[in-house]
Amino acid sequence: MTSARPFNFSAGPATLPEPVLCQVAAEMLDWGGSGMSVMEMSHRGKEFGAILERAEADLRELLAVPANFRILFMQGGGLGENAIVPLNLSRGGKVDVVVTGSWSRKSAAEARRYADVHVAAEDNGREIPVGWTLRDDASYVHVCTNETIDGVEFHDLPRLTNGVPLVIDCSSHLLSRPIDWQRVGLAFGGAQKNIGPAGLTLVFVREDLLGHAMDICPTAFNYETVAANHSMYNTPPTFAIYVAGLVFQWVKQLDYAGKRGLAAIEQRNIDKAGLLYAALDASAFYENRVAANCRSRMNVPFFLKDDRLNETFLAEAKDRGLLQLKGHKSVGGMRASIYNAMPLEGVQALVSFLQDFEARHG
Amino acid sequence: MTSARPFNFSAGPATLPEPVLCQVAAEMLDWGGSGMSVMEMSHRGKEFGAILERAEADLRELLAVPANFRILFMQGGGLGENAIVPLNLSRGGKVDVVVTGSWSRKSAAEARRYADVHVAAEDNGREIPVGWTLRDDASYVHVCTNETIDGVEFHDLPRLTNGVPLVIDCSSHLLSRPIDWQRVGLAFGGAQKNIGPAGLTLVFVREDLLGHAMDICPTAFNYETVAANHSMYNTPPTFAIYVAGLVFQWVKQLDYAGKRGLAAIEQRNIDKAGLLYAALDASAFYENRVAANCRSRMNVPFFLKDDRLNETFLAEAKDRGLLQLKGHKSVGGMRASIYNAMPLEGVQALVSFLQDFEARHG
Repeated sequence: MTSARPFNFSAGPATLPEPVLCQVAAEMLDWGGSGMSVMEMSHRGKEFGAILERAEADLRELLAVPANFRILFMQGGGLGENAIVPLNLSRGGKVDVVVTGSWSRKSAAEARRYADVHVAAEDNGREIPVGWTLRDDASYVHVCTNETIDGVEFHDLPRLTNGVPLVIDCSSHLLSRPIDWQRVGLAFGGAQKNIGPAGLTLVFVREDLLGHAMDICPTAFNYETVAANHSMYNTPPTFAIYVAGLVFQWVKQLDYAGKRGLAAIEQRNIDKAGLLYAALDASAFYENRVAANCRSRMNVPFFLKDDRLNETFLAEAKDRGLLQLKGHKSVGGMRASIYNAMPLEGVQALVSFLQDFEARHG
Repeated sequence: MTSARPFNFSAGPATLPEPVLCQVAAEMLDWGGSGMSVMEMSHRGKEFGAILERAEADLRELLAVPANFRILFMQGGGLGENAIVPLNLSRGGKVDVVVTGSWSRKSAAEARRYADVHVAAEDNGREIPVGWTLRDDASYVHVCTNETIDGVEFHDLPRLTNGVPLVIDCSSHLLSRPIDWQRVGLAFGGAQKNIGPAGLTLVFVREDLLGHAMDICPTAFNYETVAANHSMYNTPPTFAIYVAGLVFQWVKQLDYAGKRGLAAIEQRNIDKAGLLYAALDASAFYENRVAANCRSRMNVPFFLKDDRLNETFLAEAKDRGLLQLKGHKSVGGMRASIYNAMPLEGVQALVSFLQDFEARHG
């Protein structure tokens, strides 16, 4: 069955592990002998309670989330969090943002509705800028650790020495690599890249940052309320949490290059990205414009030197079973998103197509 | 296969039509020959675009939504909307709320964060109060047209004569009956009762009410922004929308008592509720405490006169394949939620069990 499915390079919602989809299909009418689909279960019943508890425990184990962090299952996505984070953490004070591309720029703009926002450094999606002008009295510093559109990734988190909490928007590389929690105050990400269906947002928040929400923060989006109710203040996106839980189990069981679990998936991501960037760099026909030290393992934007070939490229790719390679409308060109669930074979097939297309059109 | 599944009376997330679940399972690895699960599709691709467009068109047709209403596919549920509605409509001014039970009480409390809230009338979940003290300069009047916990339903919408828009929280009876749009300014509801998986919120808003959001309204929850972006400002809960769309198709095709579509589902709901209330009223062993003129067709709370039998009742019901009958923790007793997807046979089986249980324990 695997060989029959095309390879799907969507930036998100994105490809999911085929064994997970098979299990979801098999359990659709009857989860675990309950006689119910997971979609049909009361969120307060013992069946869904067990699903949520296991999902949270597996995620905590996979990412080695420390005990003083709470994991919240929320709604509203990254764009929702752009408001929800300052509503909870800014105290109406100062927020520093490092702009590395489209998403951090959006975060800065939205935070301005609630706080005094200072852009501490800025680059236009090609590299991570240096010389950050941070303020010691900021409520937090915001960075986007993987810019989905621009393809810029932090391979090391910044170490803030002034005691100001670091907030990371890690939507598009969450669960693809370990997180150095010593450097983080809050991390958030939409599920629809590496984790599950759209409509689920994961928030990891250090406990000392709870309890400082602004009065105008909607109760359903108040981290303290969500944490106190174990993500059950309002009805959580139960089915999306169930699928995410199956993905966590899939990652835990993954073997690759003598490694297992998150270490295996990270190594596979390193190898996949290395293969694709090497092919792009070896050619004068294609171009990736991101500085080598911050190229994303997840999202690889590239351009054909002759952009009149774009439509032909996309049509031929689709015929080969290589789907959703079109770049984001704001930057044009192509983008291959090679998240956790993209097998090595998918990247090999893409590289083979890149070379073949160049041989015929270059 | 139908006869093997138990009947699930959960108040939400709730039972879904079995043909819909079967189709979702069958299409899990390949929707419409695309080679992708719907979970894996870019929300901006043509495949998901077609799914969303059809879902919206079918919903508009089913509920006869006028052209001057926009339909928004959002996140955050009813509790989220309790803040999002005043953020968009109150203009920081006056809001009148009619309290008929638990949900409208919560809505009033949350709206106080943003507006001058006046309780225009109040009852404790037994009947719809009369003698509303409405203010002519209110930004809107809020009512909950079906109180899920208390089992109180408006069978006619109030006709406001002062020109103030009526906001209806119709979460738990949305799509179970027609809506008189002439009397409504905005309607909202979570999907997880009659429509689909939790994590999708439907908002129907009259166009003249767009564009008045408070400055502090998060952009992702600004109705005008969501409307202008056709529910694509942030990534929508794509899979939940897909399931909802299949449910809309199922309702459209439903035949019952010589009727079709929404008229058929409404007639079936009338008959199901009639059967259950008649059984409860015929017995001194069970009790429903809601006034006859506002009993909900969707949520039927009832009490055993001897509440020491509650656990026995629930255990025996489960053995008979009658699931999730426990009442909400805030009121106790039992509750049978008999949403659209509950077949007449499910209510007949419940009535039969009620009578049998009384015969053995009464």
